[in-house]
Amino acid sequence: MNKHAPNSWEARADEHSFYGFTDLPTIDDRGAIVLTHGNGPYVYDVHGREYLDGNSGLWNMVAGFDHKGMAEAAKAQYDRFPGYHAFFGRMSDQTVMLSEKLIEVSPFERGKVFYTNSGSEANDTMVKMLWMLGWAEGTPQKRKIITRINGYHGVTAVAASMTGKPYNHVFGLPFDEFIHVGCPHYWRFGHDGETEAEFTARLAQELEDTIQKEGADTIAGFFAEPVMGAGGVIPPSEGYFQAIQKVLKKHNIPLISDEVITGFGRTGETWGCQTYDFVPDVIISSKNLTAGYFPMGAVILGPEMTDRMQAASEKFDEFPHGFTASGHPVGCAVALKAIDVIMNEGLIDNVRTLTPLFEEGMARIAEHKNIGEWRGKGLMGALEAVADKNTKEPFDGSLSVSERIANACTDQGLICRPLGQAIVLCPAFILTPSQMDEMFGKLEKALDGVFAEVG
Amino acid sequence: MNKHAPNSWEARADEHSFYGFTDLPTIDDRGAIVLTHGNGPYVYDVHGREYLDGNSGLWNMVAGFDHKGMAEAAKAQYDRFPGYHAFFGRMSDQTVMLSEKLIEVSPFERGKVFYTNSGSEANDTMVKMLWMLGWAEGTPQKRKIITRINGYHGVTAVAASMTGKPYNHVFGLPFDEFIHVGCPHYWRFGHDGETEAEFTARLAQELEDTIQKEGADTIAGFFAEPVMGAGGVIPPSEGYFQAIQKVLKKHNIPLISDEVITGFGRTGETWGCQTYDFVPDVIISSKNLTAGYFPMGAVILGPEMTDRMQAASEKFDEFPHGFTASGHPVGCAVALKAIDVIMNEGLIDNVRTLTPLFEEGMARIAEHKNIGEWRGKGLMGALEAVADKNTKEPFDGSLSVSERIANACTDQGLICRPLGQAIVLCPAFILTPSQMDEMFGKLEKALDGVFAEVG
Repeated sequence: MNKHAPNSWEARADEHSFYGFTDLPTIDDRGAIVLTHGNGPYVYDVHGREYLDGNSGLWNMVAGFDHKGMAEAAKAQYDRFPGYHAFFGRMSDQTVMLSEKLIEVSPFERGKVFYTNSGSEANDTMVKMLWMLGWAEGTPQKRKIITRINGYHGVTAVAASMTGKPYNHVFGLPFDEFIHVGCPHYWRFGHDGETEAEFTARLAQELEDTIQKEGADTIAGFFAEPVMGAGGVIPPSEGYFQAIQKVLKKHNIPLISDEVITGFGRTGETWGCQTYDFVPDVIISSKNLTAGYFPMGAVILGPEMTDRMQAASEKFDEFPHGFTASGHPVGCAVALKAIDVIMNEGLIDNVRTLTPLFEEGMARIAEHKNIGEWRGKGLMGALEAVADKNTKEPFDGSLSVSERIANACTDQGLICRPLGQAIVLCPAFILTPSQMDEMFGKLEKALDGVFAEVG
Repeated sequence: MNKHAPNSWEARADEHSFYGFTDLPTIDDRGAIVLTHGNGPYVYDVHGREYLDGNSGLWNMVAGFDHKGMAEAAKAQYDRFPGYHAFFGRMSDQTVMLSEKLIEVSPFERGKVFYTNSGSEANDTMVKMLWMLGWAEGTPQKRKIITRINGYHGVTAVAASMTGKPYNHVFGLPFDEFIHVGCPHYWRFGHDGETEAEFTARLAQELEDTIQKEGADTIAGFFAEPVMGAGGVIPPSEGYFQAIQKVLKKHNIPLISDEVITGFGRTGETWGCQTYDFVPDVIISSKNLTAGYFPMGAVILGPEMTDRMQAASEKFDEFPHGFTASGHPVGCAVALKAIDVIMNEGLIDNVRTLTPLFEEGMARIAEHKNIGEWRGKGLMGALEAVADKNTKEPFDGSLSVSERIANACTDQGLICRPLGQAIVLCPAFILTPSQMDEMFGKLEKALDGVFAEVG
């Protein structure tokens, strides 16, 4: 199966790595790409090939692949205190300081923070918190979790159950208590003749109907990404969160903003909920929280959820939950630096500066007859490939169009990600305008080549 | 509630930290302990107080809290390539090398590795893998997961469902498909007049009966820690794994060895399954894998599971699962160093050297009239507090005996962990004989004080 020389890096990768989220026909055809180092937004493979990473790793390496300040912060903490946990009321000073900082930069006037190692764990933890409230508050039937089709919340069995993507059927997921309502993607799901405002109202009504049908007293919480990320970069339709939050408030259902991707600057504000002008009950953070320099997730509880969870924990004398590396001192030191770098060292400003150029580039490419729409917010965007621009008809699945585009980009020295039939761009916040030009130039070449074959 | 000065570290910790696995009455009474740095097996708080950490963090800081070589390995990788993922067939060179090393040091002649950020995520991933086999192999009814009472497998909702501890009822867990069979703790669960061999045979028969009752074709896998860790340091009864594995093999049920705690030296061998002389189908690793210097978990698939999971993934063209920081280059560089430090720089040798001293110290303390037994293997052990040594009757729960012991130890400058009515010791592998004496000396003083009050 493997065409590479026996001791090549590609063969060694194949031999012992079990690939996740990897198109195996592409691996069979092309082999793995083994990377050794980075420079700003570029990464380099074992053969010295350079790639502009148009996805900043997985949305997260927003300060680039060799940020001196980030590395120094990690290294200093390795010299100071290289590991501890946060169980039994013991924790590092860095952990205390990061929690203070997270509440300071949150939209909450007060709150408490719980750490995990990933966004998946943070969402999974939040579900357990909601279920513990059911036990503590005498509402154990409040079990159901509502999320949206195309929402992505991670890969633990519970986080995958929240994720509204069809591939989870191979695991026999979602679990029973997980409900997926409609995706606020007007271009794809709006009816003929329906205005965007009408579309939003229909989704709010669908949520209301779902709650009525299931019983408001069976629903523990509603989770949403301000802009759907791994579901295909889908900003909400106009007025969506206002309409949704009104329904949720009426039924006393907490709104949890999954800001794993949108948190810390991606949409041009610190939080996506600020970009879309709503205040959730809880924020889930990860990714940019450490600029990808350390695995970390955080559950940031707003005032009311803090009080309720505190009362629940006191009822049991403890919150019987925690990960070994929750609140790791190096991770906390790295996160303190990442927040400072993003908010105070020009990164979020650069997102705002680059956004018009990004939108211009996306709009230019979207003129192509095989691009149905471009969509996005701040420095996250997607281009939707279509066989027919007027009917919005997608390409035949057997053509693997987005995989072909991603591979053609790789050949051009550009990394970008296929998602369904869309191509995702979410570059690092340190990008320069000329690197932005390079990104779009390479993408255009790749698209021209692929569409000439299949279009 | 908080008695500490408004700007004290203790007050700041309380204000913004949501504590996990923390006895809240103890926090109310004593406040958090905020730590700043370490020295060998000692840690220091913001007031300069020194603590000998008898639990090496959470079993994991086995090279101590300021190991120069470990810190250098992390720092060098931060300078080289400070972050990437392992999606889309791309990964760092460190990731490739770590997978090779893990298979080399595993009991498997070949295999593949999948990375996570924690032991919880690794167990959760393994359950998803087993469920995906059900989809791929036409046995979707194979959903049930068998674990043991007092087994600990983590805290994601699925990992918590595997964990056989009563506290998970506050989350409405376990999920339906998770079954807990008996705990192989002969001292506590052996019947009157039953020999240890008879006890083991009874547990094997219980497993056989459970499989018959549930239907072998509904069971996806059996997970077990070679020595139960967070369930109270419980080594298996004599011949346990041989008896169990015979039953599992008869029914073609995979045996997954959860070596999050036992992996990399804790029991005196690289793997706990080697100490107990069995070869599992899969090994779950975490904790010592990085000596606590980075969050990481790994699913290490043996030959047969590698082939089955590879076929399942190819059937779907991918394994649709992965964490953003899976196979993080810094984590992999840290793990490569940790494995080298443990296996080649004297740490595992020191475990073997110290074990007789550890056993001697435990046995001496176990002579106390309020210690029912000591148990353990290698450098992990527990002392079980009892109100009556002959009847094995525990203390009244309202006395919070093990919390009192842990707090009395803290006052002595020793950290050790209460688990049920047991006190757990699992020191760093770098301990010296005189530090071992110090540990037992402090523990004895603490025990004498507490038992004088309640005994």
